[in-house]
Amino acid sequence: MQAVKPAAPPPPTGTLRSGCPVSLGLDIFGDRWTLLIVRDLMFSGKRHYREMLASDEHISSNILADRLKTLLGEGIITKTADPAHQQKVIYSLTEKGAALLPVLMAISDWSHAHRPVSDAYRPAPAPPALPPTWEQALQEVRRAHQLTDRS
Amino acid sequence: MQAVKPAAPPPPTGTLRSGCPVSLGLDIFGDRWTLLIVRDLMFSGKRHYREMLASDEHISSNILADRLKTLLGEGIITKTADPAHQQKVIYSLTEKGAALLPVLMAISDWSHAHRPVSDAYRPAPAPPALPPTWEQALQEVRRAHQLTDRS
Repeated sequence: MQAVKPAAPPPPTGTLRSGCPVSLGLDIFGDRWTLLIVRDLMFSGKRHYREMLASDEHISSNILADRLKTLLGEGIITKTADPAHQQKVIYSLTEKGAALLPVLMAISDWSHAHRPVSDAYRPAPAPPALPPTWEQALQEVRRAHQLTDRS
Repeated sequence: MQAVKPAAPPPPTGTLRSGCPVSLGLDIFGDRWTLLIVRDLMFSGKRHYREMLASDEHISSNILADRLKTLLGEGIITKTADPAHQQKVIYSLTEKGAALLPVLMAISDWSHAHRPVSDAYRPAPAPPALPPTWEQALQEVRRAHQLTDRS
């Protein structure tokens, strides 16, 4: 584990750089931490602040608190009292948050192909075949960039 | 267009926070700018530095130069002399860069459903149906977070 400088927080809600859908997504989760919090909630069964604080990436407490606040404000997560622990709260994904699954899966698939994923995360589940429209688009990108057609 | 503070650059190559595939992807493109550069190359037909500098999000020249350097170092883009303009270079995606298409598509699909996408980007193409494995995973997330099953 090496120390990593905290990233600047995402721009405040309502500060839009453009109307482009890619940009509009990155305005919310285009930092190094936000999607890791969503990942913890989605795949690791984590629900408590301290559990997320204990993740391998060693998020700092102030960044975690800030990003949770952003995610709450954007309606991507909710916060409720934990019936089992009176002084704890439980964080959960909303439907809008659950809808980030394809984003996380796409990043994961890309990393399995191109990054040094730990053995603990292998063997990767076979990546789903690209939907026809995506495959077509990928072919167009390949053509435009003069990549070898592998189909 | 409002001013947005530049984000901190991604961690240097080789600085891994964990072996998790989501984290390993975000180590490279988990900032507010890198995927916008990939987007410009992938969807806007932009090939020159100045074209990317002119995008709606108003990336600053030093951030653009820094992110292009990172993308080159990671083998996500290449740089070649422009045969049409002796003093210009052309940036292109590699196969590794083209493989980011599903990440951009997933972000775009999410934004079309949940963000104020500009009319210029609508009507969105119908999002492809989730592959069966993703649909199954999404159902599990919904169950775990007690979301209404919409299937």
